[in-house]
Amino acid sequence: MDEEKILAGHKRRNGKVEVMPKVPLATQEDLSTYYTPGVAYASLEIKKNKDLAYDYTSKSNTIAIVSDGTRILGLGNIGPEAGMPVMEGKSALFKKFGGVDAVPLCVGTTNEEEILAILKGIAPSFGAINIEDIESPKVYNIVRRAQEMLDIPVFHDDRQGTAVVVLAALMNSLKLAGKDKNARIVINGAGTAGTGIAELAIQAGFHNISVLDTKGALYQGREDMNDAKKELAAITNKDKRSGTLKELAAGADVLIGVSTKNAFTADIVRSMGDKSIVFALSNPIPEILYQDAKNAGAFIAATGRSDMPNQVNNVLAFPGIMRGALYVRAKHITMKMLHASAIALARSVGKNLSTEYILPGVLDKHYEKAAMDIACAVADSAAKEGVARISKDPKEIRVEMKAMAKRYRAFEKRFI
Amino acid sequence: MDEEKILAGHKRRNGKVEVMPKVPLATQEDLSTYYTPGVAYASLEIKKNKDLAYDYTSKSNTIAIVSDGTRILGLGNIGPEAGMPVMEGKSALFKKFGGVDAVPLCVGTTNEEEILAILKGIAPSFGAINIEDIESPKVYNIVRRAQEMLDIPVFHDDRQGTAVVVLAALMNSLKLAGKDKNARIVINGAGTAGTGIAELAIQAGFHNISVLDTKGALYQGREDMNDAKKELAAITNKDKRSGTLKELAAGADVLIGVSTKNAFTADIVRSMGDKSIVFALSNPIPEILYQDAKNAGAFIAATGRSDMPNQVNNVLAFPGIMRGALYVRAKHITMKMLHASAIALARSVGKNLSTEYILPGVLDKHYEKAAMDIACAVADSAAKEGVARISKDPKEIRVEMKAMAKRYRAFEKRFI
Repeated sequence: MDEEKILAGHKRRNGKVEVMPKVPLATQEDLSTYYTPGVAYASLEIKKNKDLAYDYTSKSNTIAIVSDGTRILGLGNIGPEAGMPVMEGKSALFKKFGGVDAVPLCVGTTNEEEILAILKGIAPSFGAINIEDIESPKVYNIVRRAQEMLDIPVFHDDRQGTAVVVLAALMNSLKLAGKDKNARIVINGAGTAGTGIAELAIQAGFHNISVLDTKGALYQGREDMNDAKKELAAITNKDKRSGTLKELAAGADVLIGVSTKNAFTADIVRSMGDKSIVFALSNPIPEILYQDAKNAGAFIAATGRSDMPNQVNNVLAFPGIMRGALYVRAKHITMKMLHASAIALARSVGKNLSTEYILPGVLDKHYEKAAMDIACAVADSAAKEGVARISKDPKEIRVEMKAMAKRYRAFEKRFI
Repeated sequence: MDEEKILAGHKRRNGKVEVMPKVPLATQEDLSTYYTPGVAYASLEIKKNKDLAYDYTSKSNTIAIVSDGTRILGLGNIGPEAGMPVMEGKSALFKKFGGVDAVPLCVGTTNEEEILAILKGIAPSFGAINIEDIESPKVYNIVRRAQEMLDIPVFHDDRQGTAVVVLAALMNSLKLAGKDKNARIVINGAGTAGTGIAELAIQAGFHNISVLDTKGALYQGREDMNDAKKELAAITNKDKRSGTLKELAAGADVLIGVSTKNAFTADIVRSMGDKSIVFALSNPIPEILYQDAKNAGAFIAATGRSDMPNQVNNVLAFPGIMRGALYVRAKHITMKMLHASAIALARSVGKNLSTEYILPGVLDKHYEKAAMDIACAVADSAAKEGVARISKDPKEIRVEMKAMAKRYRAFEKRFI
């Protein structure tokens, strides 16, 4: 990576997103329609029925990406201003891949109550909120309490989006390995991602899961666990087995790293069971490089890196999930919606499925299909669960998403 | 106005603004540059020096338009959701006329302390805040306290923008009437707009000003005045003259209405001094119609209406003011910056000045020049006052604003 070139790219137009009108303002009639006095009609309709904000304002397609700057990438607590480049980048991805209008918002407080007050304050203007890069375990409380408080989805991509992509990768990998939900899964890392992966895998029917932190396996009764880890221990590791990574990985079917670079040695991979599956998702340096895992006998390996096969990348899921949730004006994101997303993402690979292609690539032609499949699955699942305000025909979803993607390509070509 | 057509316009694309990327996301290199891992370089630079957020993020061109929905147009307290159509309309105007990216944000609380906490919370993400349609006198405290607390401009368009446009109209009208700063000015209406007009006129050197509320003239010692009115009484009406609108208007040079429809009778206008100037700015129905004021002998009349000559419209000022403030990364908006804006707006009319053309029309060719003149004046004034983080060459401002306007026209033609 060329640092100077990257910084120049960020500086060229001062950041990465802009706010554009969607309505004409060329004539006096335009001005009277979209601003005073005509705009009063739209305001009065919404005053009568708040839900009409989804019709007459951009709420139905607009989300806030909220961070407090405490856990930006692997950089730690670098403050709200320094967090903004990441939130702006995510906003750009939301628009390009999901047609979602996302307002990057880094807040100048790290206090849980103050962050919740801000979320409550801004919620009327948005169709959903994406919580991003807030330190754990604080972030768990914020997401849970915000979702209890608000009637729009509060999506935690680090936990939920990651879980969807990993579960999709896991389902496709196990299919290739000829294994089922009895597979023994070891997750190294008990932070936000590890927690999300474990709980969604359980939702999907996997029941043989152990999660490890730096001190070894989580099990009920272990000391030195915070509340989040206690909850995790309660739903995993039924045998209450203690042990180190080395001990747990021996004979395992699946080893998932959401921990730290180089945490998986070749010996560890070699010690795994037949047709082993290794996801080394630490970023930017994985727990073990793709080729090293394969050389050590892994049947399937995956990392977070774009320069190796089988990239596990959140962008495969979050645009489609949010797109589907917004289409049906969902009130929440549920576990079933996430599970449906993972199934849709896994299936979108179709006949291309191979040990070197367990997920679509972000820039593949397949990607567009995957995003549509996920959006349809989320919309359908939300309706079935009763968290959707309206229903939306999958055919319509596909037609609209294709039109959006086409419009975006034209915009990108002409204006970027 | 055709209500159905207006509502259909608002619904056609669900609201009026969208968030667009400014950077390409077409290749793997793009993704690595503008998202992980490359984006970390931008974050780390800003961590070292917060001011670099103006270079590497959209902060330098992005503002929040914040309302609590308590005083939307003339509709009163209609709630945050119902306020959004107005804020989105304003956002569209900011982009079209000033190239400013404006995030509409209606907050779900009407509590002063909670609104201030939200403003403090979101400030790191924005280059300025535009406070809009919050009820007075609460709004005065919010704007003052927010500006004391934050190092970005907190602009109150209802007060400051209105004052700039009215002062420009006043200066041009007095020029045509051959009158000077001794003119006796009566302002009917002691709310946000009336207060702003009075204080900026005083800043500009006018010293013979009376302000009236529904009970008559404000004067020091009058009972039943809130703190805001007491402050206003202290800086106006030096003779401490009491009286009704009818009594005060008799013999006055200028009568400015920011009050209520039909408040000015023909008799009141007839009773004014020679070459009288009448601004009837109540919206959508003025204190007196343009032609009625002229028929009653007004030398110059103006209203807020687009279907009559001399429209006094905030959009003549706020895009240029914000543009100039953002260009120099201003910390505050000062009275001198507002005064300089009014002078620039007044002068932008140039040789076209006549009793039927005291201000440029919003859709005139002159408008573009006016916005540039204002931006240059604000940038220059901010630098002189020491509230600018950087300076900016006026030539550069004009070149950039022309390029922005051209780009916007191309976008509007192709995508709206």
